[in-house]
Formats: sequence, structure tokens, C-alpha cells
Amino acid sequence: MTLRFAMFGAGRIGAIHAANLARHSRAELRYVVDVNGTAAQELAQLHGAVAADADSALEDSSVGAILIASSTDTHADLCIAAAKAGKAILCEKPIDLSLTRVEQCLAAVRSAGVPMLVGFNRRFDPSFAALKRGVDRGDIGNVEQVIISSRDPAPPPLAYVKVSGGLFRDMMIHDFDMARWLLGEEPQTVFAAASSIVDAEIGRAGDVDSAMVLMRTPSGRLCHINNSRRASYGYDQRIEVHGSKGRLIAGNPTPTTVEIANADAIAVDKPYHFFLERYAEAYANELDQFVAAIDQGRPMPVSGEDGRRALLLAEAAIQSLGTGIAMSVAS
Amino acid sequence: MTLRFAMFGAGRIGAIHAANLARHSRAELRYVVDVNGTAAQELAQLHGAVAADADSALEDSSVGAILIASSTDTHADLCIAAAKAGKAILCEKPIDLSLTRVEQCLAAVRSAGVPMLVGFNRRFDPSFAALKRGVDRGDIGNVEQVIISSRDPAPPPLAYVKVSGGLFRDMMIHDFDMARWLLGEEPQTVFAAASSIVDAEIGRAGDVDSAMVLMRTPSGRLCHINNSRRASYGYDQRIEVHGSKGRLIAGNPTPTTVEIANADAIAVDKPYHFFLERYAEAYANELDQFVAAIDQGRPMPVSGEDGRRALLLAEAAIQSLGTGIAMSVAS
Amino acid sequence: MTLRFAMFGAGRIGAIHAANLARHSRAELRYVVDVNGTAAQELAQLHGAVAADADSALEDSSVGAILIASSTDTHADLCIAAAKAGKAILCEKPIDLSLTRVEQCLAAVRSAGVPMLVGFNRRFDPSFAALKRGVDRGDIGNVEQVIISSRDPAPPPLAYVKVSGGLFRDMMIHDFDMARWLLGEEPQTVFAAASSIVDAEIGRAGDVDSAMVLMRTPSGRLCHINNSRRASYGYDQRIEVHGSKGRLIAGNPTPTTVEIANADAIAVDKPYHFFLERYAEAYANELDQFVAAIDQGRPMPVSGEDGRRALLLAEAAIQSLGTGIAMSVAS
Amino acid sequence: MTLRFAMFGAGRIGAIHAANLARHSRAELRYVVDVNGTAAQELAQLHGAVAADADSALEDSSVGAILIASSTDTHADLCIAAAKAGKAILCEKPIDLSLTRVEQCLAAVRSAGVPMLVGFNRRFDPSFAALKRGVDRGDIGNVEQVIISSRDPAPPPLAYVKVSGGLFRDMMIHDFDMARWLLGEEPQTVFAAASSIVDAEIGRAGDVDSAMVLMRTPSGRLCHINNSRRASYGYDQRIEVHGSKGRLIAGNPTPTTVEIANADAIAVDKPYHFFLERYAEAYANELDQFVAAIDQGRPMPVSGEDGRRALLLAEAAIQSLGTGIAMSVAS
Repeated sequence: MTLRFAMFGAGRIGAIHAANLARHSRAELRYVVDVNGTAAQELAQLHGAVAADADSALEDSSVGAILIASSTDTHADLCIAAAKAGKAILCEKPIDLSLTRVEQCLAAVRSAGVPMLVGFNRRFDPSFAALKRGVDRGDIGNVEQVIISSRDPAPPPLAYVKVSGGLFRDMMIHDFDMARWLLGEEPQTVFAAASSIVDAEIGRAGDVDSAMVLMRTPSGRLCHINNSRRASYGYDQRIEVHGSKGRLIAGNPTPTTVEIANADAIAVDKPYHFFLERYAEAYANELDQFVAAIDQGRPMPVSGEDGRRALLLAEAAIQSLGTGIAMSVAS
Repeated sequence: MTLRFAMFGAGRIGAIHAANLARHSRAELRYVVDVNGTAAQELAQLHGAVAADADSALEDSSVGAILIASSTDTHADLCIAAAKAGKAILCEKPIDLSLTRVEQCLAAVRSAGVPMLVGFNRRFDPSFAALKRGVDRGDIGNVEQVIISSRDPAPPPLAYVKVSGGLFRDMMIHDFDMARWLLGEEPQTVFAAASSIVDAEIGRAGDVDSAMVLMRTPSGRLCHINNSRRASYGYDQRIEVHGSKGRLIAGNPTPTTVEIANADAIAVDKPYHFFLERYAEAYANELDQFVAAIDQGRPMPVSGEDGRRALLLAEAAIQSLGTGIAMSVAS
Repeated sequence: MTLRFAMFGAGRIGAIHAANLARHSRAELRYVVDVNGTAAQELAQLHGAVAADADSALEDSSVGAILIASSTDTHADLCIAAAKAGKAILCEKPIDLSLTRVEQCLAAVRSAGVPMLVGFNRRFDPSFAALKRGVDRGDIGNVEQVIISSRDPAPPPLAYVKVSGGLFRDMMIHDFDMARWLLGEEPQTVFAAASSIVDAEIGRAGDVDSAMVLMRTPSGRLCHINNSRRASYGYDQRIEVHGSKGRLIAGNPTPTTVEIANADAIAVDKPYHFFLERYAEAYANELDQFVAAIDQGRPMPVSGEDGRRALLLAEAAIQSLGTGIAMSVAS
Repeated sequence: MTLRFAMFGAGRIGAIHAANLARHSRAELRYVVDVNGTAAQELAQLHGAVAADADSALEDSSVGAILIASSTDTHADLCIAAAKAGKAILCEKPIDLSLTRVEQCLAAVRSAGVPMLVGFNRRFDPSFAALKRGVDRGDIGNVEQVIISSRDPAPPPLAYVKVSGGLFRDMMIHDFDMARWLLGEEPQTVFAAASSIVDAEIGRAGDVDSAMVLMRTPSGRLCHINNSRRASYGYDQRIEVHGSKGRLIAGNPTPTTVEIANADAIAVDKPYHFFLERYAEAYANELDQFVAAIDQGRPMPVSGEDGRRALLLAEAAIQSLGTGIAMSVAS
């Protein structure tokens, strides 16, 4: 029994999902939809699918699932349309930059009763998933502190910065999800500090490029997140969890294990350059779990509510930045 | 233009090759041949191929390449038949346990003028390949010493040991190939020491389970190889190359980067359990390069002669073991 | 020309300083002073010094330097007395828990014109010092973020907690000094979050055992510090500095380089248990630099003002904890 | 009760021993003897000892121990003289380059009944000692293979090469001792391969600069040693022990834990430059154990017989190099 997909978005994340669908023994990519018809055509052709418009894709009753990898401003509309059409939804993060819109979207999904997975890909990274299993197994006892480092290799284009919703909604949203997942409790207060020290243009565009956050949960668990839009050595994604009995760290995987020693130094590989390389395996695992959850009628490993909660933390951080005060998190 | 394959052997290595063929955009698995008809049928079905007998597969003129992953004693016959049928050949190592038979086989391939790749998968491992590129680029100057550690997680079944040709032809053959590849010169003398200290049964079956070899090239480069049939911590495959300007080391990759610290120790992942996991990427790369070499009319990255030369080193090691003398390598 | 010392305090830090003085070719331990006469006697005897009362030690004109390693509440009085007696001062941190008292003490030192080093031992740790040299050399360009992890193996006795001045003045004071040293700018705002999640008794005593701080400098550099009174795996002291051109990390040194691999895991040494072991070399270097600065009439590598500034940050953190607001740092 | 020493040799190893004696609470350096009177004078003065001639030092009945750190050709004579004078002996390796002379020397020591420690400093290195404790505790089960890498940063002066006794007696002698210590059985056969690939002048002087050895014990344990006179990245001293239950590795310690990441690579410290830095702690531990063994009337941790046995292995290696045959070890 094969799950047939229509995919929206033929950009770089769409390309990854398409290739994973093509290799999947219980999934099939049927349609690719993109405002850029040529891009849709090419990606469809590469994997034996067909380019289509949104309506045809949504109306085809043989299509069981919609994968949304188009631009952020289209996510909520597509989710709602997919929900109405009774399709399962795999939606790239964020659902929307507006909390109100997110809530409308989730209401539509809930009322349609369709399964929905929000694409927090890091939960499916082998190292972060192993770290989470260790925490859940009690390997380090009661969780006390979580420290998340998340640094991009280079700033995105300024044009993107302007429509991104800002660093907290666009970039740190992933880390807010990791924080909730690993803390095992909802953060109660959020404090943020930030600057545009990497590129003054980003500051002039009203955004920040460097940020640090502190959060505290009701039982006193603490969490720190640091973000930067620049890491000259590559994509830097590390997590530490400290508990009453020990510490778990997930570091950066590297392309090879080669080490060179010479008169200057001992040098090893840099981390993978960016998320497409680092999270290749995570994207494949995410799709596997989406398909398996539908097959087996199990709940999705990341829900729409997870998407909303991460956004609540981003909103609190943004308010804190404006006030210099630790903000309470709405619920 | 797609290269159509017939594959011989539906065991665990065959299964890997079949999956890699299924994912390949310029290759297609057409036939699976196996003495065990059910195994052939199941593997073929999984990937949209058909089970066939050897003759039909070899006679189908639409088939351009034969992949030989059946038991060792069938390799030479299949190579010769494939050569006669004008097919390109990807043959798992070893070509044969008998040097005479290997030479007959290579003569047939040569006279047919078909391309042939011997499956020394380690050459396609990302870390070993990066190490080789470093050596070739001169990153460490003139090569002076090569040290190869190669240790299996657990001994094979005794039944396999008895038909394997012995540790030197069956297991260390890979390391002999790595040694030749990295030394950049043919070894001139080979000395071996060994024992059956892991399992006395292996000794009673006439084989050894632990071995060390020293080799020397004409210009004075030295090479050490150590093998064991047991490594409780998993598959241990490491290489060091020492040169006039530095040292390159390729270590064991691990499934995750997770580290746990507690009152006992700081612990990290063990290496991958065995070759299927460790060399998954290598097998895919091997197939890519085989297809690309045919596409582009380039020479194969590992030749039949490479297969023969590795066997010559194994033969010299076996003789040295019997005599306690460093043996000259035949050519 | 040998510098003669009188040392106050014969406890565990005194013992370290005494041994370092005994080995020093240009220093000599003359007097040991302690309210516990037996302790003074024993330590003095071990290193060829004599036990004395405070007045005799301060009045001896052959004594050039006073090393203050007694309990915190005695530091300021001893500094003032030493300054009046015209002695150079090496004073363990903190100078005092009260900012007013610190300022009185520094005024006395300034007016006496004697050299004074505050014992922020971490500045003399080989790894942290190398990291600082890298920053100063511009190895990572403009400093953007500093991340400091500092975790003790186990909480101190409750009796100590009650007189310690609290985690921020007693423990994080070291990290505030590291932050100032590495940021290269004075922090302008400080935010703190904390809890007593390790031991509820510590909370009942009015202190916290787990804390996180965020600081921001005028140019937008950000700094995070995390502290815990418990780390089951040993003393955890790590620093990251991120700059426009790269990242410097100083990790935990270990007693040995031994790694054990078995069926369970690959395990390496835990960090040193606590500061006496981890900073043994730092204490020796600190003394060397104190003596060398006096010999050569150079300024002290850590000044009394450094002690005061670190305390200002601790005070701001404490206020932030009470208010939930990022506090401006006094100057 | 203080043990009074006379030390022969005021060179770089003598300087280390002198400093360690100066710091030792139960030892005292009384005399320094050297053919270079100025060197003796200076070293003696630095540590409050006196320069003396050999006879006065040996005749002083208050002297309990002789430390021999002079040139190799003087070791045996000094040992014999010290033994006759009833002094305990700490003799730097090797006892002598001639096996006959070593045996005469050991006979004199035995007949005098004085304690003797041969300075195989590596046994006292914290990492190698921890590795040995792990082996003895059974952490890795039955020992099966030992792999020793031992590489100097740069070749010694040619003048030294010519009187050194050659690489096997001068350099690999340390590794032969490590091998015996860790194998837990005497090697029965030794095979060696070597070349002068680092520096042809060394070859013309009749020595080699690169060497590999294989050894086998009666129960089938195998050992590999590799040596090079050049390692551009610093002193490289690593040991692996493989057993039935696991693997122990001792790697190279480094001066700091600092790691720098930038656009080029992730780089860490090189190993310590050479033995004086790498084994500073080992030399101090060696002296401690020598003094403690005398204090407590316990046997020495490394005996004269250990010195002789290591030389037997070197002799076998040299013979193997000439013959291309694995040589039996004399006893």
C-alpha cells in the first residue's frame, strides 16, 4: 500500500524531499506544484512525477498526502486547503509567521481530523534523536540545564532577511523546538539579548544576526540558546543536556574521519557546510516516520501544536528584546 | 542512457548492490540470478527486477553489465562468461583463491576488451578516499610508512573459515589492496606472523585468526598490517600514512556524535558494527564510479590486475608464515 | 634576589601556594599565619618556614610580599594592613563580598602604591591563556560571542554556602572575570536566571545552585555563562569564543589519554575532579607571574580593579535575579 | 629520613633529575659529577649541591644513591663502582650497548645486593601506567596484540648516530621494554624491516632511521613496533593493546586543550615536542618510585634484568635485519 504525495515547492528543500520520496518503498511522488513551472517540470521529470497546478493536485483522490515545501507565506493556505481535501500534511516549518494565522490553520487541521507533521527536521537527526533517547531513558537523571548552539555558515540574502520574520521566528524557531523537546517542560519565561554585529545591513533591515536566549521552566530547569548568522568553519549545531546524573552532548558530524598532522597543527574536518548536508539523513528519517505514522495510525512525532508552541517562544523572545525584561510565555 | 545490470548472488552483499542499483538514475537492475531461486525472486521483486537463470541473463543483449556478488568459487567462471558475452564486469573480491585461475580469468577479460572493476570497496570509503587524495596531493610529502588496522567484530562461522581460503586471502586481501594503493610502490618483500588465539577451533581448521604483516618497497617504504577476527567494540578499520612532511590518519566513523559523561567515564559511540554499515556509502560510491567510468569511457578505478596483485601479496604472506622468512613478491 | 613571603591561611589553597613557593627559585616562604596554630605549624615545617602571628609577619622588613589565602572575611583587613606595611599583595579572590569594603581596600592599596594581584587563577591556566593569546592575536577576528561553562563536581557544605556570599559572588565571580578578559569590552547589561534544582537545602539557605547569565557589551558582543554546583563527571570548565573569522574552544584537560573500547562503549578519562587538580599548573604560573612582575617592575596581570569589576557583574546578576530585568552594570 | 644522591651527568636529562631531586621531600642532591666541570658546577649551584669528582662522591658514606645520567659508555663502569660502594643505583637506559658488558654489570649489582632501577621512563608516564593497570586488572581480557608507535620529532646529530649503537639499541629499546611489559610474556621471535628513508646520511653512517618490528610470544600474542627518526608534528608516542574483551589506547597528551575552527579546518595542539616535555611527569614519578622502593624495602619497578631483556630483543632485531629471517630471542 503506497502513499501518494503531491509536493508544493520545487526549491532546494523540495528537491531533497522529492529524492527521498523517489527512494521510498511505500511512498510515491505524484505531483510537483510550483509557481515556477519550469522548476516544477524539471523536478517532476527527474523523479517520474508530473508537474501540476495546486487544484488538480488537491482534487486527485488518489493523493493521500501533501508535502508543503513552498515559501513560508503559502504554508497556512496550503495546510487549510489540504485539510479540507482530507489529505495528510507534512508542512515545512514555520506554519506561518503570525500566531493568529497558525491558530486558524491548526483549527482547520483539527476539524478535518487529518494527520499533520511540522518539519522540525532536527528531531530526526541521528545524533539529536539518540541524545533524546538517552534523556528519556534516564541516562542522566533529572534534566537540569539544556544548552543549544546553532550557527549558520553565512547570512542569508538581505531580501530573504526582510521577509523571514526575523532571526527568532526564522532560525531560532528550530532551537525553541529542540529546547521544548529536551527540557521535558514548557518554558515559563524567556529572556533575549541580540545584536547585528555580523552585518550592519541586517540591523538596518530591522533584524539581528547574533542572539542569545535564556529560558526557565516551572520546576527550575534552565535553557540557553545561542545563534549566529555566521560561522566561518561551517554549520555548527550542538546540544548539551545536563542532568542530575550526568551530561549528554551531541556534536557536529563531519564528512570524513581524516586527521592531518604536520608542522603547523593537527587538523580535522570542518562540520558539514549547511543544513542540506548535515540533515540529509534527518530529512529521510522524517519522511519515514511520517509515512509510518500514517500506515500504523499512530500520532505524528511532531505536531502542529509543536509548531505553535515554538512560535510562542519566539514571540516572547522578540518582546523581551524590546523591553529588556524576561517575558512570560503565553499558552 | 541507462546501464542495464544482471546481478549474480542474492545474499547480503547482493542486497546492498541491488538497492544501490534501484536508486541509481543511470543504472537499472534487470535480472537477479541465484542458485537459491526464492532468494533471487524476492530480491528481484523488491526492486522491480526479474529472477532469471545465468544463461538468459548473459544472453540478453540489452544487458550491459554483470555484477558478481555470488560465492567466491563462482567468480572466475562468471567473469569469463560475462567477458565472452561482451558485458562490463563488477566483480566482488576475490576474483578467485587460485592465482592460476585469476590469471586465466584476467586473460579472458583482456582478450574480450570489456571493462572490469574488482570490488575493493574500501577505496570508495569517504575517509579512505580523502586520505588517498591527501597523499596524492603531497600533503604529507614523500610516503614513508603505512599502518593498517583491520579487525572484524567476530569470527565467521567455522564452515565459512574452511572454504574462505584463509585469513590472508579472505580478509587481509582488502588491506593488501589498501597498502599498494597508499604506498604508491609495489611491496618487494612480505613477512607474516600469526596465531589462532581468538578461537582454537580456527587453528584446528588450519587457519589463523590474528595476524600481523610487514612489507617493504624498493625505495624503503615500510608497511604494517594487523588483523584480528575479533573486536568486541565493533568493526575497526583505521589507516595511518606517515610522510616526510606529516601524518594522515583515517579513523572509524560512528553512528552518532553523542557523548555521555557520568560518574564512571566519558563515553562515545562504538564504531559501526560491521562492513555493511561502515561501507554503505562506499558501496554506493563504487557503483557510481563503475557506471561513470563506462559512461565516459574512462579506465576503471580498481582493475583486475589490482585484484591479482593483492592476491600475490597474500600468497607471499602465507609462504612467509610457513618459513619464518620475509618472502619476495612474485610479479 | 629572592622575594620573601608571609602567607596567611594554611588550608588547602594555602598548601598549594606554599608548595609552589618552596619550589620557586626566586621566592621563599618565610612565615605561615593561621588562626589554627597547629595547621600553620605543620605547613610551615613542611616547607622550612616558621609559623607566626600576623603582626610579626607584617613587621618583618625582610618580607616583601604577603599571600592572602585565609577565609574571605579576612581578605580586606589583611590587604589594608599589608598595604600599610608596604608589602606586595597576592590576594585570593574575592577581595570582599561587600563592594564598599572592596573599594576601601583598593583605595588603601592605591594610596600605599604597592603591587596587588587578585587570584583569578584561571587566567593562568595553560589552555585558557592560549585561548586568550589566540583572541589577542586576532586568530578569530572580531570577538562576537563568549560562552562559558563552569560546573563544580558537588555542592559545598551548607555551612559554607551560608557564608559564601552566594553562587554569583563565590563561584560565578571567576566566570565574570573570564568574560571581561575575553570579551575585550566591559559588559553593559546583565541578566540572570537561576534555581536550586540540585539541592533544595541550598534554596532554603537563600542561595541557588544552578544559574545562567547573559551579558551584552556596548558594541553588541554577547556572553553566556552557565554554572552548576553539581557535575557528576567532575570539574567542568570550558570556554568558547566566537569571532568574525572563527571559533576558539578550550576544553577540559584529563589526567591521562587512555581510551578503552569494549562491547559497551568507547570511554575516555573524566576531567580532573576539582580545581586543585585542574588548576595546579595555573597556581604555579600565577605565582611565577606575580614574582616576575615585581622583579621587573611591570604591572600585575590581574589587578585589584579586576577584582572589583567582577564583583560589579555579580551584583548586577543578583539584582537581575530579583527583578527579572536585565540590569545595567555600575562603574 | 632523607636519601642523599650523587648524580653523574649534568646534561639535559641530568638537569631534569636534579630539579626533581631538589623538589623531593625525602631526597637530596648532594653531588653533581661531570667531565665538564663548569656544567657540573652550574647545575650543582642551581640546586644547592656541590660539584665533585667521581671518587669523592662514591666514597662519601652519607650518599645512599647514585643517579647515572652521563653518556652511555660510562654507565656500566659507574654501575659497577656504585655497586661496590654499596649504593642504590638509578641508571639511565641503556646499561651498555654490549650484552656481555651488561651481564658483567648486572652480576656486580647482584653480588653487591644493591637495588637498581633502569631508567625506562615510559613506564612511569601517567597514560602508559594507566594502560598497564587496565591490562593487569583484566579490563580487556586476555592480551592478544600490542601495537607501539614511537616517532621522534627529528633525527639526532650524525655524530650521535655514530656512537648511539643504532636505532634498535638506542631508540627502539624503549619500545622493546614497553612490549615486554604489556605483552605479559617474553617474545620468542623477532622480525625487523628498516630503511634510511628520512636521511640518506644516516644510512651511510651504517644506521637506519625508519624501522618496523614484529614479535610473537609462545602463546601466540603478537606485537608490532614502528619507529621513525622524524615526525614533523612532534613527538609521537602511542600504544594500543588489544585483548579478548576490548582495546586500550594511550594517545599523545598535548600542552593545551585549545581547538581553533576557521574557514580552513578544525585544528588542535600538536603533541609535546620531545621527550623532555612529554615525559616530565614520568621522570618525577620514576624518582618517586625509586625513593619509595628503597624506603620500603620493596623491589624496584624496573630491574637491571629488564634492561638486559630489552637489549636481547634489540640484538635479535638487528640480526633479523641482516638475514630477513625472524630470529629467536636468546635468554
